[in-house]
Amino acid sequence: MKNKVSETVIKRLPKYHRYLEELIEAGEDRISSQELSNLTGFTASQIRQDLNNFGGFGQQGYGYKVPSLKEEIDNILGIPTVYKCVLIGAGHLGAVISLYKGFAKSGFEIIGIFDKDDKKVGTDIGTNTIRHTRDLADFLDQHPEVQVGILTVPKEGAQEITDILVDKKIKGIWNFAPTDLVTPEEVTVESVRLNDSLLVLSYYLTERLEKEE
Amino acid sequence: MKNKVSETVIKRLPKYHRYLEELIEAGEDRISSQELSNLTGFTASQIRQDLNNFGGFGQQGYGYKVPSLKEEIDNILGIPTVYKCVLIGAGHLGAVISLYKGFAKSGFEIIGIFDKDDKKVGTDIGTNTIRHTRDLADFLDQHPEVQVGILTVPKEGAQEITDILVDKKIKGIWNFAPTDLVTPEEVTVESVRLNDSLLVLSYYLTERLEKEE
Repeated sequence: MKNKVSETVIKRLPKYHRYLEELIEAGEDRISSQELSNLTGFTASQIRQDLNNFGGFGQQGYGYKVPSLKEEIDNILGIPTVYKCVLIGAGHLGAVISLYKGFAKSGFEIIGIFDKDDKKVGTDIGTNTIRHTRDLADFLDQHPEVQVGILTVPKEGAQEITDILVDKKIKGIWNFAPTDLVTPEEVTVESVRLNDSLLVLSYYLTERLEKEE
Repeated sequence: MKNKVSETVIKRLPKYHRYLEELIEAGEDRISSQELSNLTGFTASQIRQDLNNFGGFGQQGYGYKVPSLKEEIDNILGIPTVYKCVLIGAGHLGAVISLYKGFAKSGFEIIGIFDKDDKKVGTDIGTNTIRHTRDLADFLDQHPEVQVGILTVPKEGAQEITDILVDKKIKGIWNFAPTDLVTPEEVTVESVRLNDSLLVLSYYLTERLEKEE
């Protein structure tokens, strides 16, 4: 059912998830594609097409049932599956991610935090005690249930850690290091590029200033 | 010259910037579109097309001069322009962003940090002393040079702060709050959605697990 769904559609799904969650919090039981369009900014036909990719949950003249649509989208996004994770790099960003409440809600559970700074090793972030990065490989041997690595290290150390993760058969990497990781095809890498996002903002600001001149 | 450049091309520019920076650090003076293609993963013809959007800096049979190509891309991205910013929300994420070294390098300078937590007000992050959010509007009146607001608050407070920023004629918002902000067209909003990124990773992991079953 999920074959050939384009990356563009997949990237829109979290937005549906977000709004459906808000609708449920607001006690809404059903919604038309037009109302969903007003909320999300996607066109109504876009929405119908997107959801048709996954089997189409709408009913003509009725719209969508909010709880079942949300459940379907959550299933497609794999939210009910719990992924065990390790996080490497216990700086400020590592702390943000470790303490992030949305994490557990999205089905990700951090069971090990690593840093190469001896001063941090042994201290706690949330319910995790920081371990030394040199113990990462052993930890992964002892915890084959770990499927995801979260990289919150500077770009210099990122590939070295990635090689360990890949060697230990990790399935996915959530990468915050500002570099492109070299990984085999079977490892999914999802990168958050803060500086790229900032430069896109810079582009639009500059374009606007030039227009004003 | 910058008219009608598509969002897709704009989103690729930071990647060019990133690799050109590395090439300069490595002392490389020129590069062919094919080599640039190997690095970035974009096709050579894609690269030629992208750069043609901005006037085309390549020479047949020679390729691109790395320093001048980087300078051009930096200019297009508006990196030499310094934007004064305020940051609202001095939690862990606010600290990450405030202390982020890439910031100054990309031309963004934070001159005010705000939080509504009395315990944080008066303490320092880097060179900034945290002020109370209730003083944001006054601060912006006194500092009309501020052009960018950085939102690292929870979604609940995000729109209220946005309304103040818009009222005070801010030009751009770098938004980390997991919500869609309502702003007039002339305000550029660039959002970083950590949870959306995590859900995209979740989608691909789930898809892969299903294939393996």
